[in-house]
Amino acid sequence: MPSPFQRVAILGTGLIGGSFALALRKHFPEVHITGFDREPVLREAFDRGVINLGAPDAEHAIAQADLVYIALPISTTMDLLPEIASKAPGHALVTDAGSTKRKICRLAEEDFNFGAMFLGGHPMAGKETHGLSEASAEIFSGAKYVLISEDPAGPPTDPRVAAFLSLVRTIGAEPVWLDAETHDWATAIVSHLPQLASIALADVIAEEEDDELRLPASLAANGVRDSLRLAGSSYDMWRDIAISNLDNLSRALDRLAQTIEHLRANLNSRELEKAFKTANRLYNVLRPE
Amino acid sequence: MPSPFQRVAILGTGLIGGSFALALRKHFPEVHITGFDREPVLREAFDRGVINLGAPDAEHAIAQADLVYIALPISTTMDLLPEIASKAPGHALVTDAGSTKRKICRLAEEDFNFGAMFLGGHPMAGKETHGLSEASAEIFSGAKYVLISEDPAGPPTDPRVAAFLSLVRTIGAEPVWLDAETHDWATAIVSHLPQLASIALADVIAEEEDDELRLPASLAANGVRDSLRLAGSSYDMWRDIAISNLDNLSRALDRLAQTIEHLRANLNSRELEKAFKTANRLYNVLRPE
Repeated sequence: MPSPFQRVAILGTGLIGGSFALALRKHFPEVHITGFDREPVLREAFDRGVINLGAPDAEHAIAQADLVYIALPISTTMDLLPEIASKAPGHALVTDAGSTKRKICRLAEEDFNFGAMFLGGHPMAGKETHGLSEASAEIFSGAKYVLISEDPAGPPTDPRVAAFLSLVRTIGAEPVWLDAETHDWATAIVSHLPQLASIALADVIAEEEDDELRLPASLAANGVRDSLRLAGSSYDMWRDIAISNLDNLSRALDRLAQTIEHLRANLNSRELEKAFKTANRLYNVLRPE
Repeated sequence: MPSPFQRVAILGTGLIGGSFALALRKHFPEVHITGFDREPVLREAFDRGVINLGAPDAEHAIAQADLVYIALPISTTMDLLPEIASKAPGHALVTDAGSTKRKICRLAEEDFNFGAMFLGGHPMAGKETHGLSEASAEIFSGAKYVLISEDPAGPPTDPRVAAFLSLVRTIGAEPVWLDAETHDWATAIVSHLPQLASIALADVIAEEEDDELRLPASLAANGVRDSLRLAGSSYDMWRDIAISNLDNLSRALDRLAQTIEHLRANLNSRELEKAFKTANRLYNVLRPE
């Protein structure tokens, strides 16, 4: 099957942008990919054959593109959106992979008035690690891929959107249409909250540290190691997410603190059993055998 | 190398007891293992060759044992300890695998006055799953194995203890001597707190559930799935742990709730960066590359 897009510009060739490039390479070897990132990253991407060409700036990267894929931090994305809107070819689809959607989509609504079309997106496919070295064509496999539509009548019927949907499916992901408000609420609960819960847990453990015996961390078994996987995530990425989803995340953290306090006050009552049963049910949904 | 113990009684042949039996089988095929558990579990253990013999009660199981290995829930262990103390052969070593140690060791101190020797233990090798079907000889491999000594002069020099230490190392675990107070403090932070944090996180996610779209859980990616691994744990086991470590666990939960509230109040300040940096450091200690 030929790619629905012949020339693709990828702005930000880190974990997500690099993985998207590798997935394109795998399924559509004929696609021409131009990358834009910091110079050493671009060089590595070129040397590894991830991109065909490195561009010195966003404007050059997108000049000929049928598809512009923005996989940059949220704040950088917002800084570049006006320029991308004015400089992208009129026939192009511009989409992003930012972890929060309200601010980016609101800005895009203002900027994309004619010519290129903007489609907000968010592949639910991160890792606690980052960078091109962690990129893989398989990262999207089995992942939900959120696409944003504010139209209650349904997603846009533009052929570029249909083409991108087809591409998303080809790289193994499952498209999910949501409005930006719903996306930011849901990801606050299921992605941003777990991230900060893992940071908080790690901080409590670290603060208890006994220099002599390296307790309690020295007794860590597999369970807590899994709970601390997200504690390896980088602040540089999460700062933007926290700031751009402050209301939802704040409410979610408040609920978590209250739930923990409720468990604390009920360690020897049946409330603890109720909490385990609810958690077991969710575990069974998320980890089917 | 011959086993330092020829006849072993395993009380409770679930995940830990069954795994201990399988590890013995692997390294010391000549050892005779008598199991005690509910009848269907014993039958399965016998059919799988995990035990040589099933006993109808603890008294029969331990009658001839050189080593008595208690891998029962904490409350059952405490119910049985007086009987085990009075009925175990005088030359035997009795050890347990309970997840909290103060209550069990205090009771053992009263009960084991002559004859059999008691050694409190806790292999840091659980899983969120349980039962004999999950048992594996490899579960102890690389795990810390806490042994309890209250003597500031050092661990006991009894040859039975030396023999058990050697056995623990043979099955791949690393013995760590702690007093019961220190053990219960450290495990509250690094095992019991992560367990309840995972339960609380799952409860918050489950309570937000939108019936129609199954959001937010339907967007769950790998990160949150890892954070929710412990949410599959069984209340039946954790009830005893929570109740027998109430003071330490309550304090740990309080700290976690406070830390989460601190993050909530500082989502757009440099305090968030500090929290990430501390967490990243712990992550790097627990997950060396």
